[in-house]
Amino acid sequence: MILYSYFQSSASYRVRIALNHKEIPYEYRAVHLVREGGEQHKADYKNLNPLGEVPTLVHGQKILAQSMAIFFYLDQTYPEKILFSKDAYEAARILQFCEVVNSGMQPVVNLRVRQELETRFGADAKARESWCAYFNERGLSTLEKILEKTSGRFCFGDQVSAADMFLIPQLFNARRNKVDLSKYKCILKVETECVKQEAFIKAQPKNQPDFEA
Amino acid sequence: MILYSYFQSSASYRVRIALNHKEIPYEYRAVHLVREGGEQHKADYKNLNPLGEVPTLVHGQKILAQSMAIFFYLDQTYPEKILFSKDAYEAARILQFCEVVNSGMQPVVNLRVRQELETRFGADAKARESWCAYFNERGLSTLEKILEKTSGRFCFGDQVSAADMFLIPQLFNARRNKVDLSKYKCILKVETECVKQEAFIKAQPKNQPDFEA
Repeated sequence: MILYSYFQSSASYRVRIALNHKEIPYEYRAVHLVREGGEQHKADYKNLNPLGEVPTLVHGQKILAQSMAIFFYLDQTYPEKILFSKDAYEAARILQFCEVVNSGMQPVVNLRVRQELETRFGADAKARESWCAYFNERGLSTLEKILEKTSGRFCFGDQVSAADMFLIPQLFNARRNKVDLSKYKCILKVETECVKQEAFIKAQPKNQPDFEA
Repeated sequence: MILYSYFQSSASYRVRIALNHKEIPYEYRAVHLVREGGEQHKADYKNLNPLGEVPTLVHGQKILAQSMAIFFYLDQTYPEKILFSKDAYEAARILQFCEVVNSGMQPVVNLRVRQELETRFGADAKARESWCAYFNERGLSTLEKILEKTSGRFCFGDQVSAADMFLIPQLFNARRNKVDLSKYKCILKVETECVKQEAFIKAQPKNQPDFEA
């Protein structure tokens, strides 16, 4: 397997955790999202991923973009150490949790949106940070409310799941946008457990080959 | 089954198509997203759906938000007339297509984002429309490129799938934002087939009990 990734991309970070968790070896190929206007926009890369985003997973002849699609594919092809659940409703609730991050938070605070806010409305660094903080906080409050009912050591009981793998990278994004996380008690409790796990540690931005301080 | 929905919500529209396609009868409960500041923010509704969004599906004691989670759950519990595919890679590619809409387009052009653009940056109706058009066009170009390789009568070959059910409601949104769709040949071809289907017709905003002209 080959993973096209950027150390700081939260969607890439999710997939790195999942691959580590399932103990699937993979080759890391860095795509620099900022340098020279962004390597993700180059023709070669857009052949792999028409949206020009990371991550992209290549498995033999099979090419997949979108972290959610990759998670689904990994569970189907490597069913050991399941990311969702064998129970249909539990799996759907985990998926719902992941989507709060995947469609409710990340897309509204990502690089492309921040760039458009600057270009169209002259939003300066402070205004962009405030925008990102607002949408992060809105999502985090929702996640916290869900976790009050579902969490044990991890987001859903005592078993690591996709929910944890979507949550932790988003906290990285929230902290970059100076969101105060202290009121999210369940989230912080789950985080304490996750950061002890080898799969999560190896996936951290600072442990990637393309890391920049 | 009970579906909490708003006629104009594209995420609700997706689920209405899926329920119709699987011929699952359901009770329609309207949640007005605009009236009195939005019924989705009321305490009763937020108990069902902590994010305060539509759709929400209630199935006995089971409550699910997020259209993607609902699609997944419906395929697991009503496997007839499958929304994704039995083949893992094909299913993941359909899911990838759906996520371009679900996480790449809809969240960036939805009501909450448009409201924040107005409040924070004084974006007037024209500026908001231009924002929505930009993100719609960016996504539609990606979808068109995928469809050039995958489409038959429908998005993935000659079988209706979740991909069609995510695409059609987004076209409704794009047209509301005055996006010129004429250059998206594959998309328009697929649309011609979809709009003949009973499941899609019954799900149209104008055919919902809470429709407003």
